[in-house]
Amino acid sequence: MTKKHTIILQPSGSRGQVDEGMSVRSAARELGVEIESICAENATCGKCMVLIEEGRFEKYNIDSRRENVSPVSTEEAAYFARRPKLLKDKGWEVGQVRLSCQCKIRGDVLINVPEESRGNKQIVRKSATERAIEVKPAIRKYLVTMTPPNLERPIADWERLAKGLETSMALVRGTEEKLPRWYELGIDYQCLRTLSKTLREAKWNVTVSVWQDKEVIEVQAGYVEDSYGAAVDIGSTTVALYLCNLRTGEMLAAESEMNPQIVYGEDVMSRIQYAIENPDGLEKLHKAIISTLNKLLKQAAHEAKIKMSEILEMVLVGNSTMHHVLLNLHPKDLGLAPFVPTIHRSMDIKARELGLHINPSGNIHVLPTIASFVGADTSAMIVAEEPHKQDENWLLIDVGTNAELILGNRKRLVCTSTPTGPALEGAHVEYGMRAAPGAMERIVIDENTLEPKYKVIGVTGWNTDHAEFKGQVKGICGSAIIDGVAELFRAGIVDSRGKFKQGLDSKRIRKGESGWEYVIAWAEETSIGRDIPMTQQDVRQIQLAKAALFTAARTLLNRSGLESPDKIILAGGFGSYIDKEKAMLIGLIPDCELDKVYAVGNAAGDGARIALLNVEKRNEIDGVTRKVERFELPTDPEFQNQFMLATSFPHMSEPFPHIAHLIPNRKADPMAKNFMSK
Amino acid sequence: MTKKHTIILQPSGSRGQVDEGMSVRSAARELGVEIESICAENATCGKCMVLIEEGRFEKYNIDSRRENVSPVSTEEAAYFARRPKLLKDKGWEVGQVRLSCQCKIRGDVLINVPEESRGNKQIVRKSATERAIEVKPAIRKYLVTMTPPNLERPIADWERLAKGLETSMALVRGTEEKLPRWYELGIDYQCLRTLSKTLREAKWNVTVSVWQDKEVIEVQAGYVEDSYGAAVDIGSTTVALYLCNLRTGEMLAAESEMNPQIVYGEDVMSRIQYAIENPDGLEKLHKAIISTLNKLLKQAAHEAKIKMSEILEMVLVGNSTMHHVLLNLHPKDLGLAPFVPTIHRSMDIKARELGLHINPSGNIHVLPTIASFVGADTSAMIVAEEPHKQDENWLLIDVGTNAELILGNRKRLVCTSTPTGPALEGAHVEYGMRAAPGAMERIVIDENTLEPKYKVIGVTGWNTDHAEFKGQVKGICGSAIIDGVAELFRAGIVDSRGKFKQGLDSKRIRKGESGWEYVIAWAEETSIGRDIPMTQQDVRQIQLAKAALFTAARTLLNRSGLESPDKIILAGGFGSYIDKEKAMLIGLIPDCELDKVYAVGNAAGDGARIALLNVEKRNEIDGVTRKVERFELPTDPEFQNQFMLATSFPHMSEPFPHIAHLIPNRKADPMAKNFMSK
Repeated sequence: MTKKHTIILQPSGSRGQVDEGMSVRSAARELGVEIESICAENATCGKCMVLIEEGRFEKYNIDSRRENVSPVSTEEAAYFARRPKLLKDKGWEVGQVRLSCQCKIRGDVLINVPEESRGNKQIVRKSATERAIEVKPAIRKYLVTMTPPNLERPIADWERLAKGLETSMALVRGTEEKLPRWYELGIDYQCLRTLSKTLREAKWNVTVSVWQDKEVIEVQAGYVEDSYGAAVDIGSTTVALYLCNLRTGEMLAAESEMNPQIVYGEDVMSRIQYAIENPDGLEKLHKAIISTLNKLLKQAAHEAKIKMSEILEMVLVGNSTMHHVLLNLHPKDLGLAPFVPTIHRSMDIKARELGLHINPSGNIHVLPTIASFVGADTSAMIVAEEPHKQDENWLLIDVGTNAELILGNRKRLVCTSTPTGPALEGAHVEYGMRAAPGAMERIVIDENTLEPKYKVIGVTGWNTDHAEFKGQVKGICGSAIIDGVAELFRAGIVDSRGKFKQGLDSKRIRKGESGWEYVIAWAEETSIGRDIPMTQQDVRQIQLAKAALFTAARTLLNRSGLESPDKIILAGGFGSYIDKEKAMLIGLIPDCELDKVYAVGNAAGDGARIALLNVEKRNEIDGVTRKVERFELPTDPEFQNQFMLATSFPHMSEPFPHIAHLIPNRKADPMAKNFMSK
Repeated sequence: MTKKHTIILQPSGSRGQVDEGMSVRSAARELGVEIESICAENATCGKCMVLIEEGRFEKYNIDSRRENVSPVSTEEAAYFARRPKLLKDKGWEVGQVRLSCQCKIRGDVLINVPEESRGNKQIVRKSATERAIEVKPAIRKYLVTMTPPNLERPIADWERLAKGLETSMALVRGTEEKLPRWYELGIDYQCLRTLSKTLREAKWNVTVSVWQDKEVIEVQAGYVEDSYGAAVDIGSTTVALYLCNLRTGEMLAAESEMNPQIVYGEDVMSRIQYAIENPDGLEKLHKAIISTLNKLLKQAAHEAKIKMSEILEMVLVGNSTMHHVLLNLHPKDLGLAPFVPTIHRSMDIKARELGLHINPSGNIHVLPTIASFVGADTSAMIVAEEPHKQDENWLLIDVGTNAELILGNRKRLVCTSTPTGPALEGAHVEYGMRAAPGAMERIVIDENTLEPKYKVIGVTGWNTDHAEFKGQVKGICGSAIIDGVAELFRAGIVDSRGKFKQGLDSKRIRKGESGWEYVIAWAEETSIGRDIPMTQQDVRQIQLAKAALFTAARTLLNRSGLESPDKIILAGGFGSYIDKEKAMLIGLIPDCELDKVYAVGNAAGDGARIALLNVEKRNEIDGVTRKVERFELPTDPEFQNQFMLATSFPHMSEPFPHIAHLIPNRKADPMAKNFMSK
């Protein structure tokens, strides 16, 4: 019988008995600890370094000694000799540090696995919820060394490589895993075309990139450690691209650019219209986004100092229209009732088919869309926030010209979407503007004096902090519009139906050209030389938008039999800037404990990046999106009724306990009564 | 409990008890009888027609009556009303003939399943061995009828189609089969691009073509019965294309064309050389073959009166060099020692990737190559002849400039190849020419008078049958060259070492410019005005060629421990024309019973056609080629020795019992002794 020895692995503390003669890396795997490797245990990659700790470890009752593993081999010594700087920086000496694929167990040892050698690395994502991403890319690299062909064994290049690759995969990944046999492995046709040349130039020593354990998509000469991928969020306005190292998960570049389709239409509907009305409309929209993606890829590759051909995969997300145009699918039926997309499910397409200038054999993965107007960006948001893994019921809202909502938990997810109009983004509001220097971003109105104060992007503090505040305001951005309407209501200037009250004592309340209005900034405070008011019309726009959003949320809650969500997650730029208390006050979002309302920024971009770095998330979201229940609001018989009621602002009553203290202390407006009833 | 009834199915005679209310088609399937269907049991395709026989069947002890199945439905009546001609031609009346998907079992019945309704049709291939091909194409068509989308159910087009397709596939193929779920089905990206338009134009009633039960490659409006495929054999000299109906297996057109690469080099080695020496050499060779294939496709589609886009699949075969050039893989390493191909295994590539003008979503399947010079054409020959399913040991030989040999049975197959030089095809022989009008095709020499007689292509009978035979011979084609050499030997004009004997009494034997020769045709018999002799040099050429071929066969026999094969199959045009007795006499092929030597014509073309029509043959040949043992002759230590010995002609000794009566009755030449010993 083979002799057994006790092995302890730190920092995990895994321990167990393993056979004498087993390599430390194999022993670790037996104890459930993955140690990195890419060179098929050839002592060339150095990914599997471990430290042999010496001493008496009472806790485990072992004497750990360097002599309890096989001596440093010639190959190992050669590897470390090439890396004096590493040893110096870490303060390690050879013998203490070992390549775990080379050193064999001969006695009891305590082994320290340094962070960089641990398999399945995690990287930390910066977001409200600080979540770790496990790096499990679709592409893995393997070093394959072959015996050159000769007259006795002139087997074909691919079969030679595939057989070597089978061995390398088994050595790197372990024999327990179900890995494909060499004849089940595929090779991309374009990659095959250069195979013979590469193998010979590389003298039969190559690094092979394998996609999803099934298809070889790149063969590079010698030992190559890293490959790269790009995650992209195609917004109607902005396209953001993140270039990542697929091995470490590290983000190497983030580039963004205006969506060039904007010249064909501001919003998705006008772009669909353009594609319908012009025979080459789709072609133009499609080419515009492809060329912008190529530009961003080029910039990112330059920034990261890599070649574009080293980018082996992309994951793309976007709303349904952006998704269709990216794939050169005509968006016509998305724009006409009954608003039907061509496809929901995720797709894998070769980069060369789409004309994207990464490696031509690389894969383009597009996340699934969920419903007509719940696109791949929402799928990415689910990937990032994972409502499908929660016990609590979460409500995810991505607000834009259109709002997408997901509600539920691990048992059930429901979704819907609703057009909110552009008011929440500052458009169609008389002095609305984008969040840019000169835009008001916060507004407060004193309920006694009815005097306002405001903050301006690019200016520190409130306007009232500056003795003479002059010529700096240009308009009102989305967050200040919510603030403004909420404050008009809270201060009792508009009633719960959104109507300006008359007879209030303030020179700021006046009858303007288009009806009643409240002046927030006098002409001298502005750079435009005109008073900046919020008008009755502005209030009505916000009422319509918030009614749509609120009714959508209410519908999902009712369908799920819930009073309120346990948590609200606001995604997108808009969610990051609004004052959640004010948003709740005007009934933009359902009632919820305020500290359970989170803004998570670009969750779609985060989700795309997660799906790029962890291939398992792709199958997961495919499964989740197949099961999400879709509610189409216009067909809900209650919708119009609910919507009309929801245009009013909340009053002092049960459904909004968390902002009750802010609601004007007077009799409930009869029109508003029970508007949020189920 | 459900009532049971007795069902008899003719002509198979299958019988059994089935549940009342079951459709005749389902009942038949339960009894193991497949009935065709394509319309998902919608009573529209009419593929599943059966005849209800009336009467008392004593043998089965049943009274079969039309009333024992459900009455003719409105849909069925409508179907037959549209086909009065069919009913008249067949002499069937409605009620007797039924759609088996519609009529339900209500009592005992005897049902006749006409040939055209039977699943897994067989077509008969014309060849030496008359084998039936079971038609199981990679592409199957299904009629899918969908509920149009509306505001309540605006699910995406693809998901709508995929769900309908799942239902149709299960109805057509039966529930016992493991069929993919809708979300496991794929759709080709280019096919997806036109999906939305097609579905709406077709009013949600389409025929879907599914490749290998996994990928949708075409969606056509309405009910479409047929799709088409092309099988191609790319020879170095000739390209032959066969257009087939993938449902019936019928061949609709056969087109052939010279291989246009011939302008870059007569044989494969000179084309490889061209590709090596010219930077754009491969590109030129590749484009030449692609454009010829497109021309042949166009001609065949025109001939069959179909659109090129209705061709959904191609299967291609060719020798290793043709294979590489077709795939745009550089053949350089095939032409330089150690002669290594880029890939052996079969490939599936989208038509658009190769620029072939069938449906762009269609698949191009290329059969596997086996060894450096044993190409996909040999794989196709195995598909056609099936040596891997025999108990006997078969020897398959495809003779050309290069000869490929396969030997073995179900337990073991061995293969090799050998260059035979162009002599066997009539080149490098002084008066050699292709088999064309004016070419001698048969030669006999009287062993007493030493006078010849010959047959000429385009002329009836022997030359000696014509009183004045004049001006009609141009040269000698391959089969007559074999004849000529064999007859020179048999008549004792050359000895067993191939040397002209001197002192024989014939004016036909003379010393020519390049040595001794034998005049077969005097100048006045020819159209070239010169005597046509066979020279010492010609005999030497044939000796080299036959020695190579014989040694290759002998090597395989020795390696397999066999004395001689049980059967010899000669493939290719050459094999069809040679006199097998003469071929054996000069030792071109090993000894074997003469009636066990077959010529099968273009077995490679047949094999390509079989692989096109029956997808299971593709997996089968992939498996077979992975296991074939390859012998590389130049590395065989015995090869040179064997080769030298094999240049001699056989003598009266054991190894050639089947042609012993033909061997000149004189003392064995010492040089020839035991040359065929193992």
